[in-house]
Amino acid sequence: MKRIVVIGAGVMGTAIAIHLANNQRPVKIWGTSWDRQAINEMKETGKRKELDVDVPTSIEFFYDDQLAEAVTSSDVVILAVTSEGIEEITRELGPYLNESQVILNVTKGIDEASLTTISTVIEQALPEDLRDHIPVVKIGGPIIAKELAHSMYTEAVFASKNDRATKIAKKAFESPTFKGNITSDIDGVDLCAAFKNSYAIGMGIMSGVEVDTNNSKAALMARGTVEMSVIVEAYGGCIRTASGIAGIGDYYVTSQGGRNGIFGKYIGEGLSHEEAFEKMGTRTIEGLAATRNGYRLLEELEHDGRIEIAKDVPFFNEIYQILFEGKNAKEAMRNYWSQ
Amino acid sequence: MKRIVVIGAGVMGTAIAIHLANNQRPVKIWGTSWDRQAINEMKETGKRKELDVDVPTSIEFFYDDQLAEAVTSSDVVILAVTSEGIEEITRELGPYLNESQVILNVTKGIDEASLTTISTVIEQALPEDLRDHIPVVKIGGPIIAKELAHSMYTEAVFASKNDRATKIAKKAFESPTFKGNITSDIDGVDLCAAFKNSYAIGMGIMSGVEVDTNNSKAALMARGTVEMSVIVEAYGGCIRTASGIAGIGDYYVTSQGGRNGIFGKYIGEGLSHEEAFEKMGTRTIEGLAATRNGYRLLEELEHDGRIEIAKDVPFFNEIYQILFEGKNAKEAMRNYWSQ
Repeated sequence: MKRIVVIGAGVMGTAIAIHLANNQRPVKIWGTSWDRQAINEMKETGKRKELDVDVPTSIEFFYDDQLAEAVTSSDVVILAVTSEGIEEITRELGPYLNESQVILNVTKGIDEASLTTISTVIEQALPEDLRDHIPVVKIGGPIIAKELAHSMYTEAVFASKNDRATKIAKKAFESPTFKGNITSDIDGVDLCAAFKNSYAIGMGIMSGVEVDTNNSKAALMARGTVEMSVIVEAYGGCIRTASGIAGIGDYYVTSQGGRNGIFGKYIGEGLSHEEAFEKMGTRTIEGLAATRNGYRLLEELEHDGRIEIAKDVPFFNEIYQILFEGKNAKEAMRNYWSQ
Repeated sequence: MKRIVVIGAGVMGTAIAIHLANNQRPVKIWGTSWDRQAINEMKETGKRKELDVDVPTSIEFFYDDQLAEAVTSSDVVILAVTSEGIEEITRELGPYLNESQVILNVTKGIDEASLTTISTVIEQALPEDLRDHIPVVKIGGPIIAKELAHSMYTEAVFASKNDRATKIAKKAFESPTFKGNITSDIDGVDLCAAFKNSYAIGMGIMSGVEVDTNNSKAALMARGTVEMSVIVEAYGGCIRTASGIAGIGDYYVTSQGGRNGIFGKYIGEGLSHEEAFEKMGTRTIEGLAATRNGYRLLEELEHDGRIEIAKDVPFFNEIYQILFEGKNAKEAMRNYWSQ
């Protein structure tokens, strides 16, 4: 039985640990210094408030100064920290890793500095002598943390160029309510996980421009998926990835609720970013960074002749222009529809 | 400017006529004997109640005994009758058709007798000397009639092996709020239009088995799309059709509401078909016939070695077994998830 450590005690990391513990796996959670309070609370109350769930007593907790202890004794290392923290955490992990381990990446996004996927950032941040020996697996698909923690039916995909590693990850997660798939297209899964946040903002914008209609949203559900296929293919991934659970599935669940969609709706109604942030009480909208960094990545691909942004991904192009070029949302949607 | 006649004054036919009239096209509506009352009402009140909309005064109305007059003077003949009536109506049209015309098929389903698509049924029912000369175009995608009639943003696809015909249809519909696409894969579009009704029932069943969750629905949104691709490919169509507006788009809008989804939810909650019919006040659930006839079609494809139902379309297989083999819905979903 593989021993697992989850790095990061945020809501998603904790939900994964709870699922794995319910699935009879030996699980540890290691928290950053920011997670101290959350860990203390779970240890003291036996509950995780944000997930409205009891924490299985089999889970072992480790504080930020216990990284060595948590990692060296684990077979699978699950990275569930923020995209900003991922490179540093991976470097900190380095000394405690060994060739027999597998890394599973939960974090989503496109790295601002390198314009590569988060899984690539992780690979690059591994100690040089381990870089080609520790496989990185990306988990993709529609996973609302609270539903996972409550053993609601969930399906996901595990992606890695290393077939053995995807199977190890799949086996750890699979349960009567958790269905796992595998693919070698880790780039495609990573890109979908980032870009679907942009498209969820776009869907929100549409619902602000034209209230309570479904034809338009259904059209953009299809269009977003088609464009994600185009992006994945241009990057060198597999055309089918976006039409599966990592693309459509995750795009669907993200646009059914959540901050990206709500933010988009405000923008569609004509509010400024600042006004929308204020109404929402937060400035953390995942899809904003995904759109900005995603656009830069597409510019690079365009420069290499692999994509034409305006022609091949017109919906994404309008989303970018609304969010970062000050284009009027109503006008952008009218423009998209008449292309 | 192409002159258009819509055959059938049901809600969808009328909505299409209204859209085309608003788009400055010369439009006639011809009604069957069942449509007399609806036509009289529109002529007298200038409104269509079910669509909550004014009927443009430019639309000309024709009764069931005026078929010749309505059809001979038209360039595009839009068929918008029920799937049960489509073969007979096409035969009745025969004498008034000529080689310069284009037929546009709105009707969805898989024909029970021949297990072919509705567009194929239309082609076969044309007069022999016209069969290879009048192109049949299928319109696909997410179109809620009321939204179309109110000029809400809508996107669709026009499919035909005849490129000229798809362009004529596209041009007639395109407007600042209506975006048209074209494809040669008419089989794929027809199959998606039928099977998405089955998958919408399946999505409803899931929401009856597990209330208020999203991970499962998102997973099945992806799975249904993947399975539609498999079905279309096995039939000889294009793998990309299901990942576009005719597949995902129509599946999404159908499962967001409507009778298929509601019926499925009742079945998922454990009601019998009869109990669900009674609660809904109707026995007309499109997805039921689509699932029954669709399954028979897949059995034929399986017999020819083109698909393995249980392995290649497991979600559809469970839906069929729930609806027609008396399988318990909870058990079927548990079974699907653990495959």
